[in-house]
Amino acid sequence: MTTSPESHAAKLASLSLEEKASLTSGADFWNTKPVPGAGVPGMLLTDGPHGVRRQAEGDDHVGLNASVPATCFPPAAGLGSSWDPELLERVGAALGEEARAGGVSVLLGPGINIKRSPLGGRNFEYLSEDPVLTGQLGAALVAGIQSKGVGASLKHFAVNNQESDRVRVSADVDPRPLREVYLRGFQKVVGAAQPWTVMCSYNRINGVYASEDPWLLTDVLRGEWGYTGLVVSDWGAVNDRVAGLAAGLDLEMPSSGGVTDAQIVEAVKNGTLDEAVLDTAAVRVLELADRTEAAREAGGSYDADAHHALALEAARRSIVLLKNEDGFLPLDPQATGRIAVVGEYARTPRYQGGGSSLVNPTRLENALDAIREVSAGEVAFAPGYTTGDDEPDAALIAEAAEAARAADTVVLFLGSELESEGYDRKNIALPAAHRALLDAVVEANPATAVVLSNGGVVQTAGWDHLVPAVLEGWLLGQAGGPATADVLFGLTNPSGRLAETIPARLQDTPAYLDFPGELSRVRYGEGLFVGYRYYDAREIEVSYPFGHGLSYTAFEYANLTAEADDGGIAVRVEVTNTGDREGREIVQAYTALPGSEFVRPRRELKGFAAVDLAPGETQRVEIRIGREDLMIWHPVLERWVLEGGDYQVEVGASSRDLRQAAVVRLDGHDLTLPLGPGSTLEEWLAHPAGGPALSSLLEQAAAEGNQLAAMLTDPEGRSLIGNFPLNRLAAFPRSPLTADSVSTLLESLEAE
Amino acid sequence: MTTSPESHAAKLASLSLEEKASLTSGADFWNTKPVPGAGVPGMLLTDGPHGVRRQAEGDDHVGLNASVPATCFPPAAGLGSSWDPELLERVGAALGEEARAGGVSVLLGPGINIKRSPLGGRNFEYLSEDPVLTGQLGAALVAGIQSKGVGASLKHFAVNNQESDRVRVSADVDPRPLREVYLRGFQKVVGAAQPWTVMCSYNRINGVYASEDPWLLTDVLRGEWGYTGLVVSDWGAVNDRVAGLAAGLDLEMPSSGGVTDAQIVEAVKNGTLDEAVLDTAAVRVLELADRTEAAREAGGSYDADAHHALALEAARRSIVLLKNEDGFLPLDPQATGRIAVVGEYARTPRYQGGGSSLVNPTRLENALDAIREVSAGEVAFAPGYTTGDDEPDAALIAEAAEAARAADTVVLFLGSELESEGYDRKNIALPAAHRALLDAVVEANPATAVVLSNGGVVQTAGWDHLVPAVLEGWLLGQAGGPATADVLFGLTNPSGRLAETIPARLQDTPAYLDFPGELSRVRYGEGLFVGYRYYDAREIEVSYPFGHGLSYTAFEYANLTAEADDGGIAVRVEVTNTGDREGREIVQAYTALPGSEFVRPRRELKGFAAVDLAPGETQRVEIRIGREDLMIWHPVLERWVLEGGDYQVEVGASSRDLRQAAVVRLDGHDLTLPLGPGSTLEEWLAHPAGGPALSSLLEQAAAEGNQLAAMLTDPEGRSLIGNFPLNRLAAFPRSPLTADSVSTLLESLEAE
Repeated sequence: MTTSPESHAAKLASLSLEEKASLTSGADFWNTKPVPGAGVPGMLLTDGPHGVRRQAEGDDHVGLNASVPATCFPPAAGLGSSWDPELLERVGAALGEEARAGGVSVLLGPGINIKRSPLGGRNFEYLSEDPVLTGQLGAALVAGIQSKGVGASLKHFAVNNQESDRVRVSADVDPRPLREVYLRGFQKVVGAAQPWTVMCSYNRINGVYASEDPWLLTDVLRGEWGYTGLVVSDWGAVNDRVAGLAAGLDLEMPSSGGVTDAQIVEAVKNGTLDEAVLDTAAVRVLELADRTEAAREAGGSYDADAHHALALEAARRSIVLLKNEDGFLPLDPQATGRIAVVGEYARTPRYQGGGSSLVNPTRLENALDAIREVSAGEVAFAPGYTTGDDEPDAALIAEAAEAARAADTVVLFLGSELESEGYDRKNIALPAAHRALLDAVVEANPATAVVLSNGGVVQTAGWDHLVPAVLEGWLLGQAGGPATADVLFGLTNPSGRLAETIPARLQDTPAYLDFPGELSRVRYGEGLFVGYRYYDAREIEVSYPFGHGLSYTAFEYANLTAEADDGGIAVRVEVTNTGDREGREIVQAYTALPGSEFVRPRRELKGFAAVDLAPGETQRVEIRIGREDLMIWHPVLERWVLEGGDYQVEVGASSRDLRQAAVVRLDGHDLTLPLGPGSTLEEWLAHPAGGPALSSLLEQAAAEGNQLAAMLTDPEGRSLIGNFPLNRLAAFPRSPLTADSVSTLLESLEAE
Repeated sequence: MTTSPESHAAKLASLSLEEKASLTSGADFWNTKPVPGAGVPGMLLTDGPHGVRRQAEGDDHVGLNASVPATCFPPAAGLGSSWDPELLERVGAALGEEARAGGVSVLLGPGINIKRSPLGGRNFEYLSEDPVLTGQLGAALVAGIQSKGVGASLKHFAVNNQESDRVRVSADVDPRPLREVYLRGFQKVVGAAQPWTVMCSYNRINGVYASEDPWLLTDVLRGEWGYTGLVVSDWGAVNDRVAGLAAGLDLEMPSSGGVTDAQIVEAVKNGTLDEAVLDTAAVRVLELADRTEAAREAGGSYDADAHHALALEAARRSIVLLKNEDGFLPLDPQATGRIAVVGEYARTPRYQGGGSSLVNPTRLENALDAIREVSAGEVAFAPGYTTGDDEPDAALIAEAAEAARAADTVVLFLGSELESEGYDRKNIALPAAHRALLDAVVEANPATAVVLSNGGVVQTAGWDHLVPAVLEGWLLGQAGGPATADVLFGLTNPSGRLAETIPARLQDTPAYLDFPGELSRVRYGEGLFVGYRYYDAREIEVSYPFGHGLSYTAFEYANLTAEADDGGIAVRVEVTNTGDREGREIVQAYTALPGSEFVRPRRELKGFAAVDLAPGETQRVEIRIGREDLMIWHPVLERWVLEGGDYQVEVGASSRDLRQAAVVRLDGHDLTLPLGPGSTLEEWLAHPAGGPALSSLLEQAAAEGNQLAAMLTDPEGRSLIGNFPLNRLAAFPRSPLTADSVSTLLESLEAE
């Protein structure tokens, strides 16, 4: 039963100041405080983004104790590679069902921060290095979760791109990258899916804690984006509770033991906090309680088998085929030869990361068993390394090499070591034990396919030339094992695409010089140029570009059209499956504006669509590019603007495999800044009205022998001082201009 | 006659408010205002950094009209490559003599801004991409100029690294790069040579105009650095005169026609400006007049021939031999074969840049004539291109190729097009006409040495592999022609070293993504990593590294020692000339601190020394590295600090040709930040006193069954929340800590 605004007001009026304050912080680690007399329920908020992490009563909050079993879907690093909003919405709905079954009102996810550096310790919980992809996928997850009456919590708002010093660090970022890269995904999700809660992050942004930043939590989130839900703190993110409340942080979690409630009461009493601010926050808590009421009361169960099947489907979609020389993959399931499966990760899956997102899975299937199930061949196994041990183990390696030598085909499972919330990675290299194993196995038998399990990027340069095939499995959740086997043996034709670039070297990465900063500050010095935007701008070779992913079939593109309409650009292209098996192509549309007056990336993803094609089939794919996605943030006008011009639309299979291009003219906003005394000579001369007026004044003065006027009308002279503001030129001795004549010029313009 | 402070006070007392105000701005473009009744003279201030640009009465100020002839020494791009402070001091002294002869009180140079991007339009006026090299060379120029009783003007203070929007742009730069890269050179020159004037720049720094920034002009320049001279505006740099005066801008140039004098008077009268501030500025003008009095009265002449000879010497020292396969150079002056000299720049030298530094030379000798003089061979000439024309001229190219084909040896003069104050370059490629000529000439005759004439870097990648030898001539002033011939034919053994990296591609340069910014802001996103610091940190191949320069002989290094003493580090190394001709080596010392707690470049130049060696001769070279040069700016403590540790000292012939290394332990400052409630768990545990106290508290709580305490004492748990501040941990429900217990811990530490 949803309560009307009137009854919220009535309920509020029935609450004491202390009771209202108590509503705005937790009762304990996971629950909000009920006010039984007033009919206000407590709500249970629970991690996490790819599975419900509900701890039994009395447990700690950070994962020392196991949580109640739940389906472990692929973490965001995997899901992001699916480029499949429809799938993510179904995953979200399943998460919502499981939450509801556990009495959970709010599920603390999705996490949608941009992967600024591959070293980011929590990258495995995030979707992409691109904000448009992030926004579309994040919105789908939110919509799915909330379709079951459970609130999502869009996190971590905002600019939380590292774990190092995460509770204090200030992310120092300029307005354009802040808006166009780091906030854009949040803005898109808020606009498309209105998450019932947004979780503010621990860090500071340009010196101000996200948890007490009125610009972020109120001006931008509510004022500009129209957000109507509740803002909750990340657990422990409150710095100054009263300042936070005033800034728009409605709910503090976890409990502060009443300490901050008392601060709020005191602040209202002594007049430093307007009670209306508290009322607003309290109403948002009441509204959230209303919204989640049905789910809370529904309780019930969920179909664990069906959710496992969905986890399997999601895992299949998440796998990216990076490399496949001469059709090495798929392996033939009917072949009766010998297969060596090498690597402990085949037996003991590396399927999720550590920290608050850690899920206690309902089941866990490994790849080794699945391969044995799928393949008619004889499957041997050698672990090759011990999980968590970076040092090569000579005996395990020798055993693995022996198994490889005896086999027709080797499937080698490698990857990263445990990644977790709480700390960043130090490098992106394979663990030494894995690298040594690879060398030994490949020497023993080069017919080796590598399967990677990793949350953050693992460097492939330096070794991927040694093997004919590489599968990037990311972290695949509890059904990752059979999904991997399905792809290896062609039961599934892979369709995952990289949602982040695999760079050739850590030294090439955009944030290499200033990640993670020092002394609690980190400068986002690369500006707009995050991920592929950086590699493309600097023309740096990468191992595998953003958007890359192979298929067991092939696709051709034809007849691209791009038409402008009121909503943006309608892109249409024909895609044909030219191979001999069914396959799924992710058609990607990038735009650029050559000759832009602004700093811009070489190209930016603005839309994408999936198409499933039978062999020989052609379909016309339509991708809508929204006007809002074409806008840039104007740091002087302080608003989103669409620059008019001839936009280049490139469509293809990755950011570096662009098959078709078209040009479409868009009318944009008038971005001419008004002339003033501080406008430069060149700006004046370029102005349609100011130019002729000023020119005629200068030419007359030059004709009368004024030397500076002669210089200002001469191209060479103008190249020297054309970038002087007019009022500075007017101040020069013997200037043809005076402060008065500049004023007169301006007045004549305004009169027009 | 120098006036005592007392008489300044007396003189000041005799001046009216209006007279005092009038002293703080120009009388016209080049002169300050005299107050004849009070015995205050007017002073003539004149461009420029590598030659006196004194214009005749009534001329404009920016170079449309020719100035009085003066020796044109190599611009700073050339001089910087000499790495020769002693030479620069002599050049400075010659400049001072010429200034004095022309009645000039202040010479407006040297320019010492850091070359942030090779696109910087005024790079040719600046010394280096490195602040230590810049500081030593700049100090020598100042000392030389002032040794003749003429004031230098250290410019452009500060962070003026581009021409685009130069009058308005805000250079947005973080504290460490600001201090360690962009201000360090100024600080060194002020400390070593006390220039009588410092010229503030046009631009803003972090949003504040340099011309009205009290932090820059007073707190840093005078307060921290102990500057005692006068601050003059760049011509037209005043934004708000009263604010500027209050900030520490003593003298406005040029004249404002009395407008700003009246503003000052009004501000004093209405109480918004303390008259004492005006008095201070006026006294500084009087002091400058005193300091320059002797020179002003001396007048006289100078020995133009001697100065031309010095210009020749300086030019010889400025040439950098980039490449010399199989000893292609030097050419044999006695050889009677045919030489084709190709390229208009051989006949019409490209020897200086445009703008305020443009000198009307006393003489101008080209390379073609000089080659004909030096060589016994038959010298043909073909221009190959027309100066200023970027388009290849087929007829000129065909003629040049013909000449090349007919010759035994070709000397090909190429370079950049005109560079000038007022605008930045768009790229670093050779002009298309030059590149086409190169291809045709090399095809006709590969026995070609290229001589480059350019102010900013010209890309060599893509063509330098086609020729056996490349001389980087930069801009060499009026005697560059014979200097080039001397080096080509071995009459001078080249000893120039690159004061800036020649990158392989523009896309590789540190500021590529944010130069020159947009909408009047430019983010210095590369931070500390300017020039070689960037290429080294990112391990990017360059065409020719910082410090590079070949010789016609060879040098070996041996027996490096590095000893710490109170002043810093004494570095000693033995250098041997192992070749068969006399030569000069520039021995370079770089330091690094592996394992530093701060972000640091891979290595940084900290000292250098030249040594002239006969064939077979060995000398022990000593380089002193000052403690102050080893310091970094601590952005939290807001002061220079020396981090203790094992410093690596690398010595060699370039930043990438390091021959010897040593380690020296330095005691540093105590940089332990005091513990507070906001210090993280890990910071507490790492503290010598706080660690044990906190550990014992946590261990006891864990033993008593507190789950969070157990987590905080467990390595895995700490990896998750070790970076939480203690006060945040104390606020968690069921925390083993409370605000009170944290206070008690802190009190017990303070009691120790």
